Amino acid sequence: MTTVTAQVPATAELYFEVQQFYARQMQLLDSGRVAEWADTFTEDGVFAANAHPEPAVGRAGITSAAQAATDAYAAKGIQRRHWLGMVSVEPRGEDAAFGRCYALVIETPKGGQAIVKVSTVCEDLLVRGADGAWLVKDRQVYRDDL
Amino acid sequence: MTTVTAQVPATAELYFEVQQFYARQMQLLDSGRVAEWADTFTEDGVFAANAHPEPAVGRAGITSAAQAATDAYAAKGIQRRHWLGMVSVEPRGEDAAFGRCYALVIETPKGGQAIVKVSTVCEDLLVRGADGAWLVKDRQVYRDDL
Amino acid sequence: MTTVTAQVPATAELYFEVQQFYARQMQLLDSGRVAEWADTFTEDGVFAANAHPEPAVGRAGITSAAQAATDAYAAKGIQRRHWLGMVSVEPRGEDAAFGRCYALVIETPKGGQAIVKVSTVCEDLLVRGADGAWLVKDRQVYRDDL
Repeated sequence: MTTVTAQVPATAELYFEVQQFYARQMQLLDSGRVAEWADTFTEDGVFAANAHPEPAVGRAGITSAAQAATDAYAAKGIQRRHWLGMVSVEPRGEDAAFGRCYALVIETPKGGQAIVKVSTVCEDLLVRGADGAWLVKDRQVYRDDL
Repeated sequence: MTTVTAQVPATAELYFEVQQFYARQMQLLDSGRVAEWADTFTEDGVFAANAHPEPAVGRAGITSAAQAATDAYAAKGIQRRHWLGMVSVEPRGEDAAFGRCYALVIETPKGGQAIVKVSTVCEDLLVRGADGAWLVKDRQVYRDDL
Repeated sequence: MTTVTAQVPATAELYFEVQQFYARQMQLLDSGRVAEWADTFTEDGVFAANAHPEPAVGRAGITSAAQAATDAYAAKGIQRRHWLGMVSVEPRGEDAAFGRCYALVIETPKGGQAIVKVSTVCEDLLVRGADGAWLVKDRQVYRDDL
């Protein structure tokens, strides 16, 4: 088993796990499944963005901020899609990882034209939950236009 | 060998295979190699989209629909690029998988400005062909603007 | 060890390594760290583009071309983000690989709207350096609008 680990570094598997985590996480948010999306953060998770005066802290705070945004988009008839790309991942011990990626928000109004709404950089401290699944403990989002 | 499989879940390998399949499939379509692209569907493959009144069924039907679109773009001097992202993949038994991803169509006219033409969600039932390569058995594309 | 290699083809690991290489390489360029970015090419590396009359050859040439572009963007207050996607990778022997991908440049002016500046195709001959890290030996970039 040591040989296997040497041949296939943990980071390849880690990269795969983080990519699948991000795909699922963004599909939840863009589908308006806010409570399930908030469960992809730790109970004490932090969501900070240079577009917001204060970070959202804890699942309850993260949920209420995201629900308000989701409701506002639904009222306007706009479908959001969060795209993450150029993802780099580094292990931080056995059950944590640091991820850095680019993130675009693509918006499409019903009957209208898709646009790149914003371009951002996203930095995540990820940790494994009790069931082994990844969670965001700290997310920092930096909009390129600010 | 059992140990190796336990250490490296099939899903990491599956994710890689599907990503390479999608890269090759989209490069074929965007290069206008329609017949080779149609060969990435099963003989009885289905291509359905909420933008089309009827699904294209079978390689012949899929080829003729794609050839017409390809010819129309060529006549207008527009280069299309299909981008798939936020890909999640789940095995469906040993030789099938369900994929869900976002898909953008980026269009660039000769001498003109690139735009995000449409934002979509793509759901695929993938199966392995006789040679082990992945094929699309059923594709459903949902445009965000419709 | 032969068994392990048979179970986990080099290409899955290769795909991961190339993706991480691209993520780091583009983050360096978009952060304005031009010298570190140029070090991701071989000493005799080539960067050719159909948008440029002549290829940049060698790290010194590649650095000076990239520094000029970086300075011009900084002066205009525009943040660039290079996105690579639909990456296909093929091994070329043990220590080289051929990569083909799509590349977008997303530009955001301070206080302004993000746009897709250009859509391109990028073809790379990659080789392993002495420390095992990947380097670009030859890059060809084809803009879709030209």
